[in-house]
Amino acid sequence: MAKDYVVGIDVGGQTIKLGVVDARGEVLAQKVIKTSSDPSAEVVVSEIAQAVRDIVRESGKEGQIRGVGVGAPNGNYYTGTIAFAPNLSWAANGSIEFAKMLSEAIDGIPVSLTNDANAAAVGEMTYGAARGMKNFIMITLGTGVGSGIVIDGKVVYGSDGFAGELGHTTAVRHNGRLCGCGRCGCLEAYCSAIGVARTAREWLAMSDEPSLLRTVADITSKDVYEAAKEGDKLALKVFEFTGRILGEKLADFIAFSAPEAIVLFGGLARAKEFLTEPIERAMNENVLALWKGKVKLVYSQLKESDAAILGASALAWEL
Amino acid sequence: MAKDYVVGIDVGGQTIKLGVVDARGEVLAQKVIKTSSDPSAEVVVSEIAQAVRDIVRESGKEGQIRGVGVGAPNGNYYTGTIAFAPNLSWAANGSIEFAKMLSEAIDGIPVSLTNDANAAAVGEMTYGAARGMKNFIMITLGTGVGSGIVIDGKVVYGSDGFAGELGHTTAVRHNGRLCGCGRCGCLEAYCSAIGVARTAREWLAMSDEPSLLRTVADITSKDVYEAAKEGDKLALKVFEFTGRILGEKLADFIAFSAPEAIVLFGGLARAKEFLTEPIERAMNENVLALWKGKVKLVYSQLKESDAAILGASALAWEL
Repeated sequence: MAKDYVVGIDVGGQTIKLGVVDARGEVLAQKVIKTSSDPSAEVVVSEIAQAVRDIVRESGKEGQIRGVGVGAPNGNYYTGTIAFAPNLSWAANGSIEFAKMLSEAIDGIPVSLTNDANAAAVGEMTYGAARGMKNFIMITLGTGVGSGIVIDGKVVYGSDGFAGELGHTTAVRHNGRLCGCGRCGCLEAYCSAIGVARTAREWLAMSDEPSLLRTVADITSKDVYEAAKEGDKLALKVFEFTGRILGEKLADFIAFSAPEAIVLFGGLARAKEFLTEPIERAMNENVLALWKGKVKLVYSQLKESDAAILGASALAWEL
Repeated sequence: MAKDYVVGIDVGGQTIKLGVVDARGEVLAQKVIKTSSDPSAEVVVSEIAQAVRDIVRESGKEGQIRGVGVGAPNGNYYTGTIAFAPNLSWAANGSIEFAKMLSEAIDGIPVSLTNDANAAAVGEMTYGAARGMKNFIMITLGTGVGSGIVIDGKVVYGSDGFAGELGHTTAVRHNGRLCGCGRCGCLEAYCSAIGVARTAREWLAMSDEPSLLRTVADITSKDVYEAAKEGDKLALKVFEFTGRILGEKLADFIAFSAPEAIVLFGGLARAKEFLTEPIERAMNENVLALWKGKVKLVYSQLKESDAAILGASALAWEL
């Protein structure tokens, strides 16, 4: 029987999303599972294997699954391991041979694994905004800032499988904010959802400027976005600042791989009406003349609810 | 007859170096020509074609040349053109179809062209310090700062052929020096031979610190190097500063492509006894934990007099 379907799995800290996907990017069946509290890797793998069997049966495509693609934090494409992933309790303190374990638990169906940002890049190239592109850089603006770099149609994994950590390049060299990675001034400390909320909180504390945000407890990036939509000046300046920092770093990335486009993805990318202009301005001010106005800034075209599954599933087509 | 030899051509502003090279990187015959003053592109190409015929005859390898590789400023691998190269009067104001013109002038022998830093990277991979490496970044520290990025054994050319302009990523974000490219704060403005001389001159002007360099007119990077060898404190601090800035940027580059090694090449790389320690320190301080102490810093192993020819010639093996 032709194997014309794949399974995509997005592994997150609290939830794991799975779907059966066809070649056009239609999700035929999907499921979200919550991991049991403080599970072992063996338990997580067996729960996922059960869920894979469930959705494959539900989709009616038993025996037609070509492979399984997995996007997971700190997932390594070369080794198939998930190692020292702070957000996954079962893989926080060691290296888990996830691809091998899962493949064994689902009757030997091959499993391919990478980190979530690389999976998003493959998904965008296979089904989304980067279809037909051979050279682009995917930036995921979520809780953190991730990246997937595509050169000549292939994701860049580098010598060790960990290439494409652009969230941890330095955006602010002096007195930069402490990042979750332990270094200071990382792009992620400024241009993630957490970074945006932090900028707002810092600016509120530093000035008396009136703002809708002054009445909000525990400000999130969503609060800043809502305030900006109401025309709140401080919130608008937060996005202006965030966009400028991102645009400055994008200019450096362009000098590296001369991409056709930068693709933005993730929760924060929803604020595109406030981010696009400052990003494009800073990007074009900071590139060599030959790239000014040439590199497109585009936004993910994957349906948000399906994006994580689609990204991961796209990996499996290469199996 | 087997075509077991290649020709390498290094195109510079004043001089053009050519050589016939075998598969082991031996230069069998070579020649340096000076371009006539203010020549047209046609004249330059015909002078080069004549020189190619001369060295091929001299080497006794007529009919055995597989191809010609050319390294030239602003050389584009995809199009075979040299375009808007400020240091080449005959290609400063337009786009010259150099590869096509030269190939026609030498009886159709195929010609491959790229910029000088990419040629150096291919040379290092074929004959030098990067033999056996699939992922490395070549940084050329000369009058300017160039780069050639190798991923999975291939030079990165990007969507337009101009990828790998790491000398024009931003090293100093605020009040950075004006660079030759018209932007401010570029790595090249600090870590080139010209940048080193400029740092020395600025520091001499700003302080009364005694230095051997105070008696030198028109300070060059070589003067700074000589003074450092004499133990001159200011000169030593100049290299410390230069190395730190380079190391900080190398950390960003590592986050991009996770290379096995950084290979340094060019005149300034001769100052390795003063540069290595500050580069490695800044590099390792600024990378994610997973790369600390992992990425090798190595120096070109090509014989300096042959390096430019070897780099260009290595391109031709792929023809």
